Amino acid sequence: MRWLDQIMIGVEWRESRASSGWHRLTEGNRTIRTVDTLLRGVGQVVFQGNPVTGLFIIAGVTWGALRSEMPDVVVGMIVGLIVSTVTAKILRLDDHSVKIGLYGYNGLLVGAAVPTFVHSSPAVWIYLVVGAAVSTVVMLAISNVSKTWGVPALTFPFVLTSWVLLLGSYTFARTKIESLPAPALPARTTKALAHVTVNGPFVFEAIFRSIGQVFLINNWISGILIFVGILASSRWSGLFSLIGSVVALATALLLNAPGADVNAGLFGFSAVLTGIALGSVFYQPGWKVLGYTVLGVIFTVVVQGALDTALTPVGIPTLTAAFVFTTWLFLLAKEKFEPVQHTLIEGGVAQKVSSKAQTHAALSGS
Amino acid sequence: MRWLDQIMIGVEWRESRASSGWHRLTEGNRTIRTVDTLLRGVGQVVFQGNPVTGLFIIAGVTWGALRSEMPDVVVGMIVGLIVSTVTAKILRLDDHSVKIGLYGYNGLLVGAAVPTFVHSSPAVWIYLVVGAAVSTVVMLAISNVSKTWGVPALTFPFVLTSWVLLLGSYTFARTKIESLPAPALPARTTKALAHVTVNGPFVFEAIFRSIGQVFLINNWISGILIFVGILASSRWSGLFSLIGSVVALATALLLNAPGADVNAGLFGFSAVLTGIALGSVFYQPGWKVLGYTVLGVIFTVVVQGALDTALTPVGIPTLTAAFVFTTWLFLLAKEKFEPVQHTLIEGGVAQKVSSKAQTHAALSGS
Amino acid sequence: MRWLDQIMIGVEWRESRASSGWHRLTEGNRTIRTVDTLLRGVGQVVFQGNPVTGLFIIAGVTWGALRSEMPDVVVGMIVGLIVSTVTAKILRLDDHSVKIGLYGYNGLLVGAAVPTFVHSSPAVWIYLVVGAAVSTVVMLAISNVSKTWGVPALTFPFVLTSWVLLLGSYTFARTKIESLPAPALPARTTKALAHVTVNGPFVFEAIFRSIGQVFLINNWISGILIFVGILASSRWSGLFSLIGSVVALATALLLNAPGADVNAGLFGFSAVLTGIALGSVFYQPGWKVLGYTVLGVIFTVVVQGALDTALTPVGIPTLTAAFVFTTWLFLLAKEKFEPVQHTLIEGGVAQKVSSKAQTHAALSGS
Repeated sequence: MRWLDQIMIGVEWRESRASSGWHRLTEGNRTIRTVDTLLRGVGQVVFQGNPVTGLFIIAGVTWGALRSEMPDVVVGMIVGLIVSTVTAKILRLDDHSVKIGLYGYNGLLVGAAVPTFVHSSPAVWIYLVVGAAVSTVVMLAISNVSKTWGVPALTFPFVLTSWVLLLGSYTFARTKIESLPAPALPARTTKALAHVTVNGPFVFEAIFRSIGQVFLINNWISGILIFVGILASSRWSGLFSLIGSVVALATALLLNAPGADVNAGLFGFSAVLTGIALGSVFYQPGWKVLGYTVLGVIFTVVVQGALDTALTPVGIPTLTAAFVFTTWLFLLAKEKFEPVQHTLIEGGVAQKVSSKAQTHAALSGS
Repeated sequence: MRWLDQIMIGVEWRESRASSGWHRLTEGNRTIRTVDTLLRGVGQVVFQGNPVTGLFIIAGVTWGALRSEMPDVVVGMIVGLIVSTVTAKILRLDDHSVKIGLYGYNGLLVGAAVPTFVHSSPAVWIYLVVGAAVSTVVMLAISNVSKTWGVPALTFPFVLTSWVLLLGSYTFARTKIESLPAPALPARTTKALAHVTVNGPFVFEAIFRSIGQVFLINNWISGILIFVGILASSRWSGLFSLIGSVVALATALLLNAPGADVNAGLFGFSAVLTGIALGSVFYQPGWKVLGYTVLGVIFTVVVQGALDTALTPVGIPTLTAAFVFTTWLFLLAKEKFEPVQHTLIEGGVAQKVSSKAQTHAALSGS
Repeated sequence: MRWLDQIMIGVEWRESRASSGWHRLTEGNRTIRTVDTLLRGVGQVVFQGNPVTGLFIIAGVTWGALRSEMPDVVVGMIVGLIVSTVTAKILRLDDHSVKIGLYGYNGLLVGAAVPTFVHSSPAVWIYLVVGAAVSTVVMLAISNVSKTWGVPALTFPFVLTSWVLLLGSYTFARTKIESLPAPALPARTTKALAHVTVNGPFVFEAIFRSIGQVFLINNWISGILIFVGILASSRWSGLFSLIGSVVALATALLLNAPGADVNAGLFGFSAVLTGIALGSVFYQPGWKVLGYTVLGVIFTVVVQGALDTALTPVGIPTLTAAFVFTTWLFLLAKEKFEPVQHTLIEGGVAQKVSSKAQTHAALSGS
């Protein structure tokens, strides 16, 4: 499963005195090793297999959840993270992948999503645990399929598992809905609904709320903490999270998206992930890649708008689907995207791609 | 197409005096050979390429259909079975696969579904015949894609073809709807709707109705006949059909699914198939596999609830989609599911998987 | 990317004095070479990488658009064609594929669809340009996936990109809807709605409107011009476009589809493409292939009816999805469709398939 790591971990935690000290600690102590694995799982949501990123994210999510009086979201997140990681252990999945958190980040998001949208109860916590355990199976399944074309599962295991749990919550009387959008026929957004006064505070808040919403948190301070966590692991990823957020905001305002949702970061969170993924993780930062990434971010906003319409009749949120679908399309195109192909991150997908290219050549006899 | 057989036929009809006698008969007589092929096709729905299973299923379906005064369902089933098998013959598909019924079971189910949901008329019978013929093309198409990852098409060709026919029946005035659910926006299930009195008869009936509903038959005697048919071919498959049904019932009751539907077996039929597939066909029965299968069965019930919600606005039933999607996920994960990988049924998918694993190793240069 | 050409260009422009003269012209003059590329892109919609076909299509679309007072559709088509082709140039995609128009036909259709369904405005033209640029990325992505099984992307990049843009147009206040169907729950088609008087003019018009609707044009004269353009490139493709249209009309009338839509060619345009693709491009014309193609065309009409129902709640048109899904299924089945496999067009997919078959054999160790 090494290929998954190579694909997923964008920029390794820079070797420093602090990190080598931490490394010694994790070697010597089993509990610290476990904590390290879990924290890396938190960081993998934003492509940083880095325990420091994980710490900042937990701080940010906790702050935002407590401010909205939703402590269940924090508990759910931790439970989901642990359950999905333990499931990977029980299934004896590749040890290295487990260690760097690749079997934790989807379960974590499932665990954050369920208490956000479904009313807490003992049955719902079992529901959450089953979902988190299944998210590991789904992660494995989607990865086995997507690696055929050299692309990672991204957060699709989270999206798919959560959609099933949330759609199911309509059918079962024991899973009471907390805050799902009521199923309806799509209506046109009016100018009044789209109107906002764009000023400094609006822009500042929207940018960082978009980063917070990656973890379903509508709070700009949370967003800043998460942003700092990303920056601590990779300057490029930090920069591209901002580029994603800013370009998405501009696109949403230009297209007149519903104003309140723009302010809440709901047109930006998927774009933030698209920005990090295309701009700093899977392609090496550069001018051409910047242009490609900006196109990807703009299209992510349009896909967000499209999914908002498409899911209205069934009453579930898009989660990070706009990021997943757009980034998949922009990554699947890469094999023939010559200028980028030659500038891939060292030790990243490059070797994979070149060996695949040779195989294709061999297959077609050319 | 040998790989398909290896994947599909779980447990071969045990070599006994009776079976070798039957074998001699099929060798000598063309009509008996044809009947053998058709009966095996019936059995393939529950993964038993076994004419005895086929006989019991036909008995069960006929009993249930006549009790509900729906003889068309039996006729449709036979017509669908014959048309799809003949289509495979005309397209000169792999003779061995045709012989063991792999091109019959989807057509059979299409043929049972159309008269269940669409009002019979000459035009509708042509509709059914076209659908059954196309189901063979779809079986081939889906198999060609799914074998890339070593998984079978399951009953997805039936689901896809029937969804097209049923959705289409809204558009054409000549295809009058008999009993499709009216398109609506999803509503929350209330406690009143979910309420049932759980007693012995309720449990007993629900368990066997779930088995009957695999063939769209709401009748517990039919379910018992089909169960006996499975048992006659494989004790493990029989056991796991029961485990699937019981675990699904418990899950549906725990989550408070709509009571009448639970009683009618509508939360159990997909789970029965998941149970047989994961527990006895694609993985070798054992404690770890039992746990994995139970998780799969529980998730099948949640997926059933999710699809019930998702399909409400378009007014079509889920058919066996919950089984297909869940089992695909749990099978796609198998390549890395080491403990199971080493205990595959002899002559099953093991060789396929191991040769694939070598290819992957070769491709990635590791 | 040669494989794509081999798959896409059905019948090469016949070597004639005219074509070799044109060939000399394109060699010597850059502007003429560019015009040649763009015209071939127009022709690729109907599988003819032929500038003459492109000219006839532009004439047909222009006639129809001007008659309906929708000149924006023509402008959008040209803009989409140019933007998607230029995007392929910027991404430095395979030169030969670009030259024969394979990166133009999806952008062209996106450019025709946007002004048809969304009210023109400066923001909407930017929307269209972004969509056309993204259609090239989507073309590359879908092709990279679909070539795994030796099938082409067809017009799915157009369908996917346009669905995103149209669904998104509900969410953004700046993209005003011009003529999308209002989101609704599916209703049964009544006999009154389906009633038509079938006479000569009805049949004649419906047949050629179906061909015009491939380019979203409801005009039989446009259809005739496009038909002549196809015929100029390939007699077989011309014949099968007619067969597709006639068989679809008969099927729609037999099933009692909504009469006005049948007259407008809305049950025929996808079938026209299925007919050309299965009958003359991917399989060599012959009696068996004729039967297979007729089954494919009939099923395309049923899929059209199914998609009409399925998309009603979200208020978007099917575009050419019925053609794409049906043709994919009927092409994916081809590997085992022995009689056809041996009669593929020289220089077509045959070599590809046989090398793939060898690979499969090698993989499975048989």
